[in-house]
Amino acid sequence: MSRLVSLLSKGVSQLGSIPTKTHTFSRAFSSLPPQTRRVQRSLLYVPCSEERKIRKSLSVPADCIMYDLEDGVSLNRKGQARELVSNALQLTRDYDAELGLQSKKLQSILIPKVQKPSDIAFVSKMIDSIAPEESRDNIKIIAGIESALGLMNIKEIATCNPRLQALLFASEDYISDVEGIRTKSRREMYFARATVVNAARAYGLDSIDMVCVDYKSKETLIEECQDAVEMGFTGKQAIHPSQIETIHEMFCPSSESVDKAVRIIKGFEENASDGVGAFELDGKMIDMPVVKWAEKVLAKARLSGIDV
Amino acid sequence: MSRLVSLLSKGVSQLGSIPTKTHTFSRAFSSLPPQTRRVQRSLLYVPCSEERKIRKSLSVPADCIMYDLEDGVSLNRKGQARELVSNALQLTRDYDAELGLQSKKLQSILIPKVQKPSDIAFVSKMIDSIAPEESRDNIKIIAGIESALGLMNIKEIATCNPRLQALLFASEDYISDVEGIRTKSRREMYFARATVVNAARAYGLDSIDMVCVDYKSKETLIEECQDAVEMGFTGKQAIHPSQIETIHEMFCPSSESVDKAVRIIKGFEENASDGVGAFELDGKMIDMPVVKWAEKVLAKARLSGIDV
Amino acid sequence: MSRLVSLLSKGVSQLGSIPTKTHTFSRAFSSLPPQTRRVQRSLLYVPCSEERKIRKSLSVPADCIMYDLEDGVSLNRKGQARELVSNALQLTRDYDAELGLQSKKLQSILIPKVQKPSDIAFVSKMIDSIAPEESRDNIKIIAGIESALGLMNIKEIATCNPRLQALLFASEDYISDVEGIRTKSRREMYFARATVVNAARAYGLDSIDMVCVDYKSKETLIEECQDAVEMGFTGKQAIHPSQIETIHEMFCPSSESVDKAVRIIKGFEENASDGVGAFELDGKMIDMPVVKWAEKVLAKARLSGIDV
Repeated sequence: MSRLVSLLSKGVSQLGSIPTKTHTFSRAFSSLPPQTRRVQRSLLYVPCSEERKIRKSLSVPADCIMYDLEDGVSLNRKGQARELVSNALQLTRDYDAELGLQSKKLQSILIPKVQKPSDIAFVSKMIDSIAPEESRDNIKIIAGIESALGLMNIKEIATCNPRLQALLFASEDYISDVEGIRTKSRREMYFARATVVNAARAYGLDSIDMVCVDYKSKETLIEECQDAVEMGFTGKQAIHPSQIETIHEMFCPSSESVDKAVRIIKGFEENASDGVGAFELDGKMIDMPVVKWAEKVLAKARLSGIDV
Repeated sequence: MSRLVSLLSKGVSQLGSIPTKTHTFSRAFSSLPPQTRRVQRSLLYVPCSEERKIRKSLSVPADCIMYDLEDGVSLNRKGQARELVSNALQLTRDYDAELGLQSKKLQSILIPKVQKPSDIAFVSKMIDSIAPEESRDNIKIIAGIESALGLMNIKEIATCNPRLQALLFASEDYISDVEGIRTKSRREMYFARATVVNAARAYGLDSIDMVCVDYKSKETLIEECQDAVEMGFTGKQAIHPSQIETIHEMFCPSSESVDKAVRIIKGFEENASDGVGAFELDGKMIDMPVVKWAEKVLAKARLSGIDV
Repeated sequence: MSRLVSLLSKGVSQLGSIPTKTHTFSRAFSSLPPQTRRVQRSLLYVPCSEERKIRKSLSVPADCIMYDLEDGVSLNRKGQARELVSNALQLTRDYDAELGLQSKKLQSILIPKVQKPSDIAFVSKMIDSIAPEESRDNIKIIAGIESALGLMNIKEIATCNPRLQALLFASEDYISDVEGIRTKSRREMYFARATVVNAARAYGLDSIDMVCVDYKSKETLIEECQDAVEMGFTGKQAIHPSQIETIHEMFCPSSESVDKAVRIIKGFEENASDGVGAFELDGKMIDMPVVKWAEKVLAKARLSGIDV
């Protein structure tokens, strides 16, 4: 695994339009060949106030790890936390200068609280001027959508920069921003989540759903994952390593879906040779949109290691 | 009944921005006088792979029939299917040249998978240059909204062309596009459907809701229709002739609504003469918005043949 | 309490882009010092067809009162109703000329059925030219969002004028506009309500939720208020004085929320001094967004007179 480290470790107050406290590190799974679209089912936050948690993260199989120097560390411990991360990840001192932008290991950067295209343009220009020339073009950006204003500008944000790889929805920040109340039904966030996933899909981006804050309940996590998968999210954030396995299972197509997809493709191929377009399966009409869905399910299953 | 035939029967690959496989025929109910707004409660898809289904469609009382040469016919049978439709509908050979654009019978065209205004502009220009001069100005366009990108551009699409008559939401295509999962709750599509119906109403267009794919369950169809009516859709697509009667019943105001509307209008007229604006009916405050709703209910009921 | 009176009492037909029948009076609670953000938990409509109701309104503790000359008064009684309000509120005859625009008591104006920025610009220019110079700059505008078109243009509306203070959602008018059906679930309006509250929060405006028309059911009112609070609305409209107390209670943070907020702030301060950023409370991870939420809850509670 290569390490991803995000910029903005210091000098945040000088960063103009970027919200303060964006100290976030990233690491991503890179075992897939570069030409394969990166699978980001899970994105784990590791609070960087404790060396123990940072060290533990090295063995967690999350697709992407965010070393959280933002909300997870109190203001008076930021410097120390940066040092902890830097030591634990054995980063060069380059890291300390610009949070890893000069490291060849950098793959992508999460920008929290994106509200307008200029928030992304700022970071992208920084990458252009600081990152090593040989890796520069491969550095991707993940935009955190966490505010009412970010939602209003989602079209402009989603289309502003070729480095943009994913939109990420942060539930607690969003509800805090609109001064609402989080409920178990997630009804109060459906509009925001649907807006994010639709914009991501419209412009070919990944969409990473909210954290399940009730990290001790596997049942709640499963329900939230199911909901996200139905809406079209490609992955989910995590705040505890114990959530990763469930997330990976849920964002892999269910064996039921894979079975159904296999049967649809089989039925389609048989019927196509008979000249019949739409056909019936289990009492439902199967036509091309459903066939296309089945093809995507099988592609996802293969990426998750299922033999179909 | 006159026949509506849509363009794009051949040469699809030359059609630039138009998605491939848009081979769709249309027919609409035209027993209403032209000055009356066309009622489009139902829109039935007829897969054109079988002559039997095409012939049967001639006696189905759907408001609008789409002869589906797109998803309903496999690629290697498109040519034969076009011939079947042409023969069954006794179209002139003009039809075969441009899918009916030269026919004086053409009333409206469904463009599937509309993603941007230029998709509509392209077809509209084709109508301008090919359709007979005397019928040209009356040919309407129905835009199929079936993708995340179509939703992002819905305002631009809904306002781009005076020929545009309706927005149509295709659920299976949309869910396939966002790689989500269809559920019985339809929750995963509420955002998309609400976006479509709101845009249609904002710009004076009809809004035609998703197909009920579970075509053997009248109960499911009724539930879906009720949902659509509550949200403000003006009609619903159908994939089986057996769905038409239920759709027409559901998109006609219920006798309960008609009764209530009659009482509201009566109460309003009485109270208006007494100088009272808002008044009470069944323990609810009735004011002008409610009165306007009642007027619309009665107008719809009359269009559906109810004597009020 | 000072009285707020809105303009447009006469000459409505000359008002170009403004919808006809916008005769609405306003009054707002002004016991808070001007530098405090005005609390608008409740906005009561008083139909101005009966002097008794107008006189009664003087003792109702609503944060804002709208003397409704629009939907609440039939067309043939508008003149008489205007006279009733004017006498009851002891307005000078200036009022009768331009509905109070020349009164120094005017604090804010509700414009119903706003569909585009020019609806607001028109009224704002009227304020500039007619209102007394000394109070002119303090007159605020509340925009009623009541139509599909208003929703489509919500971004442009919410950002068009520095006088704009709040967006108000009118459920009956909206459902009438989209020709839908109101249900107890409010599902058919969730998209519209979420759009309004998100736009308001994005641009620092208040958001005032729909009226509870079932004014005899306290249970329904409580359920609607809870829903609105969860979504982030700042207040709610009322059509009966008996609804005010419940609305004020519901839009004040619950004692449960206040207790939780107090504990979060306490926990945060303790952990901050220990250098721990995120911490655990009742099995949930508490980080900065949650802390910020707690701070806002306490601020709201203090504004509502709770000692925390």
